[in-house]
Amino acid sequence: MSKGRLEAFSDGVIAIIITIMVLELRAPHEPTFGALKPLLPVFLAYLLSFVFLSIYWNNHHHLLQATPHVSGAILWANLHLLFWLSLVPFATSWMGENPHASLPTAVYGAVLLCLAISFTILVKTILSVHGPASLLARAIGRRDTKSYVSLLLYVLAIPLAFVDPRISWLIFATVALIWIVPDRRIESRLRSN
Amino acid sequence: MSKGRLEAFSDGVIAIIITIMVLELRAPHEPTFGALKPLLPVFLAYLLSFVFLSIYWNNHHHLLQATPHVSGAILWANLHLLFWLSLVPFATSWMGENPHASLPTAVYGAVLLCLAISFTILVKTILSVHGPASLLARAIGRRDTKSYVSLLLYVLAIPLAFVDPRISWLIFATVALIWIVPDRRIESRLRSN
Amino acid sequence: MSKGRLEAFSDGVIAIIITIMVLELRAPHEPTFGALKPLLPVFLAYLLSFVFLSIYWNNHHHLLQATPHVSGAILWANLHLLFWLSLVPFATSWMGENPHASLPTAVYGAVLLCLAISFTILVKTILSVHGPASLLARAIGRRDTKSYVSLLLYVLAIPLAFVDPRISWLIFATVALIWIVPDRRIESRLRSN
Amino acid sequence: MSKGRLEAFSDGVIAIIITIMVLELRAPHEPTFGALKPLLPVFLAYLLSFVFLSIYWNNHHHLLQATPHVSGAILWANLHLLFWLSLVPFATSWMGENPHASLPTAVYGAVLLCLAISFTILVKTILSVHGPASLLARAIGRRDTKSYVSLLLYVLAIPLAFVDPRISWLIFATVALIWIVPDRRIESRLRSN
Repeated sequence: MSKGRLEAFSDGVIAIIITIMVLELRAPHEPTFGALKPLLPVFLAYLLSFVFLSIYWNNHHHLLQATPHVSGAILWANLHLLFWLSLVPFATSWMGENPHASLPTAVYGAVLLCLAISFTILVKTILSVHGPASLLARAIGRRDTKSYVSLLLYVLAIPLAFVDPRISWLIFATVALIWIVPDRRIESRLRSN
Repeated sequence: MSKGRLEAFSDGVIAIIITIMVLELRAPHEPTFGALKPLLPVFLAYLLSFVFLSIYWNNHHHLLQATPHVSGAILWANLHLLFWLSLVPFATSWMGENPHASLPTAVYGAVLLCLAISFTILVKTILSVHGPASLLARAIGRRDTKSYVSLLLYVLAIPLAFVDPRISWLIFATVALIWIVPDRRIESRLRSN
Repeated sequence: MSKGRLEAFSDGVIAIIITIMVLELRAPHEPTFGALKPLLPVFLAYLLSFVFLSIYWNNHHHLLQATPHVSGAILWANLHLLFWLSLVPFATSWMGENPHASLPTAVYGAVLLCLAISFTILVKTILSVHGPASLLARAIGRRDTKSYVSLLLYVLAIPLAFVDPRISWLIFATVALIWIVPDRRIESRLRSN
Repeated sequence: MSKGRLEAFSDGVIAIIITIMVLELRAPHEPTFGALKPLLPVFLAYLLSFVFLSIYWNNHHHLLQATPHVSGAILWANLHLLFWLSLVPFATSWMGENPHASLPTAVYGAVLLCLAISFTILVKTILSVHGPASLLARAIGRRDTKSYVSLLLYVLAIPLAFVDPRISWLIFATVALIWIVPDRRIESRLRSN
């Protein structure tokens, strides 16, 4: 079974999700600086989600790159990931419009947690099809640490949103940074193989 | 005629349909659990339609996989399928906002019925071009039973919505399960060929 | 220069246009037959535009099929076509909400006219690059008659909308039928080459 | 690493951005010429942004055409460009609805400036990977002049919007013309190599 359509469909869904999020950033009616100010948390929430969706697209790209072919189980694991990705605009919009509220921030964290779990399921599904000796298994190795740290941080961010939502925002930003920075190491691993 | 663009265009349309449906899941203004509660039926209707669109994308993927080339008649049969797919967001949104009402649930069932008919037409059109001895004809064989059971269930769900919409919701969920579970058998058939 | 990205980008834009049009078909608040009735002209306008966009996608598909490679001029002629396509949702929505009014129907006809002109420009641009002896030139031959008849009908539909918009709707439906029906002849021509 | 998915994803995002912008062009309720008049600046702003997005898609197409393979750094530089592209609908809508106001026009100019900077970063990132002797480096050479002139014009347009927004609109239109016209020269350079 070819992986081309799986990649194309996932690209389409992620591209649309990333773009419809920006529809929440509605142009204010008045042409003043004051009218832009209440948009700041909406903009920051959009920026955060843009970075997360970029990371997922990037990781998805690397993951499929190392996958020789796809099965029905992989198709469904991928659709499961896309389902949670599709809830990001909702969570982003609710959190962005209520930046000082605990529940929307906790829900955002819960969506990120489900996303991380569904990505892990996709990785495990692919590994169970291709075996531990595959290029993917080796490339994924080091990533596991990062994945588990991220999962732990999401689990912490959800209750901490009820202490102070700003702590959770900080945790989300930290996770994003963890994933952006060392991407080049995985790449060099892929290159050296 | 190449089938690449047909697949790409269908992927694009299905990806957009699946994603714009989530726009109906509007973030509530108040950051409370109470504000989330009325969204539950909207969310369940979205989940149901997400699963149905995933099944159609999956089946479309398998169908085209087994189709060597496309003709003008196939292009139009495919566009006919896409037309009914494009009505899913409307039906989902109406049913999700009126979960206890009969008519929207019946209309949702009618759209699913038209979808199933248009998919059957697409299959028949492809078979009439490639002949009964093709890989597709053999792969499709067993599917026919599932297709006819689904058609029958949709036909039942429409009048039953006027008895109690919950019966129809249950029927929709049953059809979805029928299609998710045994997809692997078709796959193994494809693999063994 | 490869034509793959031109096709992919055009597919993306047409897929999105065809799908966002359906957003105009907003689910009514009340779950009654009476609430569906005012949606009928909106639905018919959507159906008409869906068919027109399908025809353009189909013709675009055939046109590019017969084009060996693309130049900068072809890229811009294609973007010009996409610009007019992108105005179809606006014209459809305005006409659908005012089915008995003359101006929106005339504007719809004007958008269809500009679409037809921009498609003709794209064909001419491709022909000027590939020469009159190309496969395309031969395949296009017979189409010219249909194109000129369509242009004439659009030109008639615009003033006739001010007499009675229903005449224009009838003309639009006629043009759509002209293009759907004999598509197979062009195909056979392509096949025989 | 293949560049196919990078192109496909970028195409998807640009296609969606270009198309959702047109959603701002809402059909008026009344079917009269008078109802169309206030849409004129919205339409002109849409047209301007359509042209700018077309230019970026075109340049992106040429840039990637000359890029043999992509690295992680290139992926992120591309995502950075897509981020600024995704802000174009917001800026377009705000400017279109307030055509005589200074701030929205200045913000539009600022988004174009950030876009130009992010495209320059993408070019530099690709050059740093492939070296100054590459086909790209030679093809890009002449473009540098145009890029620097554009950057300068954007920097001028931002403060001038506070003098008179029409000056800035004129500058934007000028930059668009600079990029549309001589695209064929780069093409001939690519062809001769």
